[in-house]
Amino acid sequence: MGYPDPRTVRRITSIGAGPIGGGWAAHFLARGYDVTAYIHDDAERPALMSVIETAWASLTALGLAEGASLDRLTVTTDLKEAVQGAEFIQESAPERLDIKQALYAELGRILPTDVVIGSSTSGMTMTDIQATCATPERTVIGHPFNPPYLLPLVEIIGGKQTDPDAVAWAAAFYEVAGKAPLVMKKEIPGFVATRLQEALWREALHMVANGEATPEDIDTALINGPAPRMAVQGQCMAFHVACGAGGMATNLDQFGPALKWPWTRLEAPELTKELRDRMVDGCNAIAGDRHFTEMAAERDRKIVAVLKALRD
Amino acid sequence: MGYPDPRTVRRITSIGAGPIGGGWAAHFLARGYDVTAYIHDDAERPALMSVIETAWASLTALGLAEGASLDRLTVTTDLKEAVQGAEFIQESAPERLDIKQALYAELGRILPTDVVIGSSTSGMTMTDIQATCATPERTVIGHPFNPPYLLPLVEIIGGKQTDPDAVAWAAAFYEVAGKAPLVMKKEIPGFVATRLQEALWREALHMVANGEATPEDIDTALINGPAPRMAVQGQCMAFHVACGAGGMATNLDQFGPALKWPWTRLEAPELTKELRDRMVDGCNAIAGDRHFTEMAAERDRKIVAVLKALRD
Repeated sequence: MGYPDPRTVRRITSIGAGPIGGGWAAHFLARGYDVTAYIHDDAERPALMSVIETAWASLTALGLAEGASLDRLTVTTDLKEAVQGAEFIQESAPERLDIKQALYAELGRILPTDVVIGSSTSGMTMTDIQATCATPERTVIGHPFNPPYLLPLVEIIGGKQTDPDAVAWAAAFYEVAGKAPLVMKKEIPGFVATRLQEALWREALHMVANGEATPEDIDTALINGPAPRMAVQGQCMAFHVACGAGGMATNLDQFGPALKWPWTRLEAPELTKELRDRMVDGCNAIAGDRHFTEMAAERDRKIVAVLKALRD
Repeated sequence: MGYPDPRTVRRITSIGAGPIGGGWAAHFLARGYDVTAYIHDDAERPALMSVIETAWASLTALGLAEGASLDRLTVTTDLKEAVQGAEFIQESAPERLDIKQALYAELGRILPTDVVIGSSTSGMTMTDIQATCATPERTVIGHPFNPPYLLPLVEIIGGKQTDPDAVAWAAAFYEVAGKAPLVMKKEIPGFVATRLQEALWREALHMVANGEATPEDIDTALINGPAPRMAVQGQCMAFHVACGAGGMATNLDQFGPALKWPWTRLEAPELTKELRDRMVDGCNAIAGDRHFTEMAAERDRKIVAVLKALRD
């Protein structure tokens, strides 16, 4: 199956008039693409344009690609017209399986098979969505994080009938289009980022339910504690670098017993040799040949930059 | 019990030569205090000075208080000398209960009873630490987040024998000293921030153990997804603002069923009316009279600032 060179893509169709569909349309416009936005009903047009115009202010502040313009946006309620000439489809239709399946059945009929379709769904698997699509090989999940015009993450995975080349193509295309692609290993509920956030969120709800913290306490703790560091390093490298020369190995050997402590309602997995090796090898791979003092200095420089940006 | 006006404090003793003790010493120096650092052994001096000098570069970039100088640091191995004239003690001794209890017994004898002692412990309760102290009323937890010279959070709570006025004094003092104090409601393991982080961390370990993600995937997801937004808004307000006019009420009514979905291994608490009200009231209190569009615009401005700061 041959897909076009992702760098040659010029025309994208964004399906959906909500904050996600509108956010995607704005992002692609800001990166210099021609964008057609498909909306279900003309009454949705003002809401779509409001999302796009709000996003445009931020995207302009971040820096537009050469030739990027809101004039390159077309809005239509005709699906066939919407996908005419499109080289990539970002689908952000309502989160209902029947709606998505009907849409993919139609898209599967009217689109050439070398046009990849990425779904913004956060709650469904592509295996389910593509079930009634006659040409499911090119359908993938391409899940953004809200707001999609600002946060770079896109989580990518195919369904059972997806061509692995379509997954690879989507990852390459999203990167060209200015996003941070993450190709997932398994079709798991919540994908990666939402699972991490959801664990934190449910612990927060437990604390509020038990009178241990208020919503204000939760946000105060995050904003002034783990969040700025996590935005700079992630959590694996935060622990790796904090443990000096020993890195993640020291973290797990020294604080491993703390995984049994009641520091959250979530029980940790057994710290097997295999898990320890995966964590240590993974952190060493990220670190490459950088010394921990160099990574700590970079962490500090970046946290200072974040704190100053938030203060000013 | 009368404590001095927190704004009149000029002399602080920081106990401990590790990254936490050294980080605290550097923070207080940067805020213009006279600081005496107590170290257990003179051999620890180079490590302490290395932490302080590393921190000083970042603190200088963030902006020093008038008169702040490394020349206002004294280092000693004599505990009595170290606390002489101190108006506040930040204790960051090794995380062993026997060591802490012996130290607090001694501090309880040699320090006037109006000098508050804050402990950096992350794993113990003040009820345990103060058990052998003859003057436990002024002892509190004052738990920083690593690196303590950069991240503003300090979690504060007393033990069973602590005077509530000492807790209030510590909160007022930390605020004067440039930190973001969070007075906790209950003595719970992991306090607030570490519990949130630990839930996320254990979900991450589960994913790595199950081959669902690598350490690099975890950090890529955080850095490009939830973390920058969490650094700007926290998580409660992120959901409140994302749901538009309906705010947290809409979030819980619409996504409440998702709390039962397997989006993390952590089971959510029952979404009772009481919990819903606490979440909604808490978010409305944080929002005050700000409209959601105003808060969304502020979120976007700040995320843009964070992304630009990290990019440049």
